[in-house]
Amino acid sequence: MQDPVPVTDPADPRLDDVRDLNSSDRRPDLPGGKGLVVAEGNLVVPRLAASRFPVRCVVGFAHRLEQLRDVAAGDPDVARGLDGVPLYEVTREVLAEVAGFDMHRGLVATADRVEEPSTQEVLDGLGPDNRVIAVLEGVGDHENIGALFRNAAGLGVGAVLLGAGCADPLYRRVVRVSMGHVLRTPFAHVGARPTTWQRGLADLQARGYRVVAMTPNTDRTLAEAVAGADKVAVMVGAEGPGLTEHAMRAADVRAKIPMAPGTDSLNVATSAAIGFYAAQF
Amino acid sequence: MQDPVPVTDPADPRLDDVRDLNSSDRRPDLPGGKGLVVAEGNLVVPRLAASRFPVRCVVGFAHRLEQLRDVAAGDPDVARGLDGVPLYEVTREVLAEVAGFDMHRGLVATADRVEEPSTQEVLDGLGPDNRVIAVLEGVGDHENIGALFRNAAGLGVGAVLLGAGCADPLYRRVVRVSMGHVLRTPFAHVGARPTTWQRGLADLQARGYRVVAMTPNTDRTLAEAVAGADKVAVMVGAEGPGLTEHAMRAADVRAKIPMAPGTDSLNVATSAAIGFYAAQF
Repeated sequence: MQDPVPVTDPADPRLDDVRDLNSSDRRPDLPGGKGLVVAEGNLVVPRLAASRFPVRCVVGFAHRLEQLRDVAAGDPDVARGLDGVPLYEVTREVLAEVAGFDMHRGLVATADRVEEPSTQEVLDGLGPDNRVIAVLEGVGDHENIGALFRNAAGLGVGAVLLGAGCADPLYRRVVRVSMGHVLRTPFAHVGARPTTWQRGLADLQARGYRVVAMTPNTDRTLAEAVAGADKVAVMVGAEGPGLTEHAMRAADVRAKIPMAPGTDSLNVATSAAIGFYAAQF
Repeated sequence: MQDPVPVTDPADPRLDDVRDLNSSDRRPDLPGGKGLVVAEGNLVVPRLAASRFPVRCVVGFAHRLEQLRDVAAGDPDVARGLDGVPLYEVTREVLAEVAGFDMHRGLVATADRVEEPSTQEVLDGLGPDNRVIAVLEGVGDHENIGALFRNAAGLGVGAVLLGAGCADPLYRRVVRVSMGHVLRTPFAHVGARPTTWQRGLADLQARGYRVVAMTPNTDRTLAEAVAGADKVAVMVGAEGPGLTEHAMRAADVRAKIPMAPGTDSLNVATSAAIGFYAAQF
């Protein structure tokens, strides 16, 4: 790990990667703009460093950079990811002015996006023991996408496939809410067109995954739907409308979480977590 | 339902119940202050009206009040809750000035708090078929409390018992995040002192509930812990520290959701949802 370089001028171009982080049009994580991956905080920055995304720089308070050095000293993957990466040491005031808000966590790192693997590459990369994957359609809320990746990682879901209408999984808020797990869990876009979607799911089925579409509009319970399945792909849709008919027709089976009368459906990330749990254990 | 009364002056004292809704010290839902219950939006306001909390007033845009009348016409519980309640019709601009922010939902109602039932009263009120209740300790985050109540209601949890260190379940944000279910699901505070906590849990056990403490620090899985139980009390603790030893010692059994290596524990509301699901189905 390099030695931190103090930067005291908020206008210094070396801090451009973390400038205007909340700006609706200039923010550096916009795919149409710089399209950077932005990780924040002591927990997530090391996860970025250990991920497949090449780190560009780290900006932080002196004691946060010191803590990062300690983490890297104990984790060769983190150390490798930070090898040769410039570290900029800033005060809280300078970072607040650059980022546009008070980043009390005091540590932020950026990385370049890398080319997304194909669905097939992601599925090829799954270990032989993997039993559950996730398939999303129309999950357009960044917080829900982030929570979904957090739940997927925690419950041992090997990969996430994204269908049409899903929010950008590398948006800064997703990285944060997922606690960095979106950087570690392999994902790929299945493709929005009906043919690519069906082909993607057919590929899953050919690999032995039972594709289970989560929807309140069926009599079959989740427990019934996953019973006896060796491998399960848990498919969830947008909050509100849920999965499209088109998506559900490509599934092997529909499944509901039995809900109490007079209640609403659960949040999509919570429903998915229950689906992952039921499929896994 | 009364006819709406237009109010055009933001300073009108009839709107005081919804004044400064976000103010840190004057907000009307603070237990130390007015301690009102505040419900927002087309979904939650009718749930407040149908609840045990006596509605004080409804403030809203003309078309929102019209929609509320339609709901009341089809639901006698809602109509009864709104009987004699003043309805104030306001514009978006007036409501924004009174509340202190743009309430685009355009409908807000307030109610008085009512005396909280005792743990025993809540448990006495459970139906004979109730199989799952929730017990919380140290859940201090309003959003988590709200999500917990939403998940509890959806998964048929009959009551929620609150131990020490839990956030106020009638805070405005909790009402909103719970989608109003905190107004419908019975809850009671078990008491912070060790004796009341132990007595509360002993009462649960005497009624046939197996008290299951959710913690990552055990070898017993959730599935094992709930196996064969007719009735289950799912106990969860604060995010981060989790349940205290004191709380866990009073439980019948400890249970973990098996987590993938290198991941964090799940959000407390998500863990609880999985616990409710495993206990219920």
